[in-house]
Amino acid sequence: MAYLNEIGIVGSGNVAFHLIKAIQDSSTLHLKGLYTRNKKVGNELQEQFSVTFYTDLNELACNSKLIIIAVADDAIETIAQQINATNQHLIVHTSGSVPISVLKKSALFYGSFYPLQTFTKEREADFNQIPILIHANDENKKEVLIQIANELSSIVREINDEERKKLHLAAVMVNNFTNHIYTLANSFTDKSIVDFELLKPLIQETALKIKTVRPDECQTGPAKRNDQGTIQEHLAMLTNEELKELYLWFTDSIRKYYE
Amino acid sequence: MAYLNEIGIVGSGNVAFHLIKAIQDSSTLHLKGLYTRNKKVGNELQEQFSVTFYTDLNELACNSKLIIIAVADDAIETIAQQINATNQHLIVHTSGSVPISVLKKSALFYGSFYPLQTFTKEREADFNQIPILIHANDENKKEVLIQIANELSSIVREINDEERKKLHLAAVMVNNFTNHIYTLANSFTDKSIVDFELLKPLIQETALKIKTVRPDECQTGPAKRNDQGTIQEHLAMLTNEELKELYLWFTDSIRKYYE
Repeated sequence: MAYLNEIGIVGSGNVAFHLIKAIQDSSTLHLKGLYTRNKKVGNELQEQFSVTFYTDLNELACNSKLIIIAVADDAIETIAQQINATNQHLIVHTSGSVPISVLKKSALFYGSFYPLQTFTKEREADFNQIPILIHANDENKKEVLIQIANELSSIVREINDEERKKLHLAAVMVNNFTNHIYTLANSFTDKSIVDFELLKPLIQETALKIKTVRPDECQTGPAKRNDQGTIQEHLAMLTNEELKELYLWFTDSIRKYYE
Repeated sequence: MAYLNEIGIVGSGNVAFHLIKAIQDSSTLHLKGLYTRNKKVGNELQEQFSVTFYTDLNELACNSKLIIIAVADDAIETIAQQINATNQHLIVHTSGSVPISVLKKSALFYGSFYPLQTFTKEREADFNQIPILIHANDENKKEVLIQIANELSSIVREINDEERKKLHLAAVMVNNFTNHIYTLANSFTDKSIVDFELLKPLIQETALKIKTVRPDECQTGPAKRNDQGTIQEHLAMLTNEELKELYLWFTDSIRKYYE
């Protein structure tokens, strides 16, 4: 049971924050401590979650058996190589797009522990509903990670580097691109002096709908109907070239998809 | 109080369905009946909601004072002109993009009653949270419509043709375009043999987040960070030209927005 009881977290960003919180809320998992270069945030997390903040990475490593590296993608390899790991250590990262092999030089056992969600400190994360995607270079250690993930979430899957990378790409589409559509629509409503608030129930319902209906089965609107009257009126209202491009691209893509 | 008690609905699509349901659920509004050319659906609605189904449009008109036309945009004017309206009648449509003037030849009093939401028969609509946008050619009648809308929803606004059209365009972006991103991501995950289900919690959270945070304040991802390593890896995974275009367009637009 050592891995479950001796978890160390490296990092202090949004993923680290919510992982610390979820582990501290769990009755079966135990956090040994946290390491981050950001002393101010380290001290804040120590206070907020009663977790030991180590200012020395290898002090954290000495006290932990599972080390979860929750830092920016391009910092994972470097920080992992600073850990003096023993053959007992299991080191994982939380990235969607980095292969686990970047941890090869740092430990005998390594893997990934990827929570597929967008985290912000201001919003509660219901970890139980967040898919945790597991991969490891060793079967036994993979089972350990799955066991730990099961303590945090009801959606746990084993997924290799390639599949995780593909899911991460799809996540960029449904999260980053969708959010950018909200941003562009918000710019348009602000400029048109109509209230973006009025669109929020629609935005919620658009996302909720696909819980039970395939997205291509609930598509509606002028592009799907190829309603040229409305399409031309909309284009005439769009004075911003970028929005016009967006409108034309989606109208064309939707029309082609359904014809 | 006659308008509140003598409502007739024309149409049998998703908007008509949910309006009938909401009015029948209300204790203060009363539905006199329904007209639709689709006899099968008319009979079904009569049975399901205990509403009188008229097969003759002018029989419905004789028994109603407020006639709500909830049909496809391009059918509104034609059907309205088939109504032998008196000077007591108030005729409104439920369209986001059609000006109220298409009803000018059909009645002395006319307007719009636009519920800004995407409706499907399979999903419950919480009308209380759906913005209803009101416009009319007469001040007193506008007040009547606002009073009726207030019985159905807690979000009621007066909005003219131009503003309604702009909101409808923004609605097309956040609903149709967003839903098409879900569709394209779903095609990609299906083709990659990874499970689209795993993205659903992320899709929900992306929409929920903007209830409290401005969308441009919660943007994350490789495009915003201008993380060229991840961007190039993603592009290499996209063999479909359309998805590649989508990815490049959003990556460029996000980068420009935040630089």
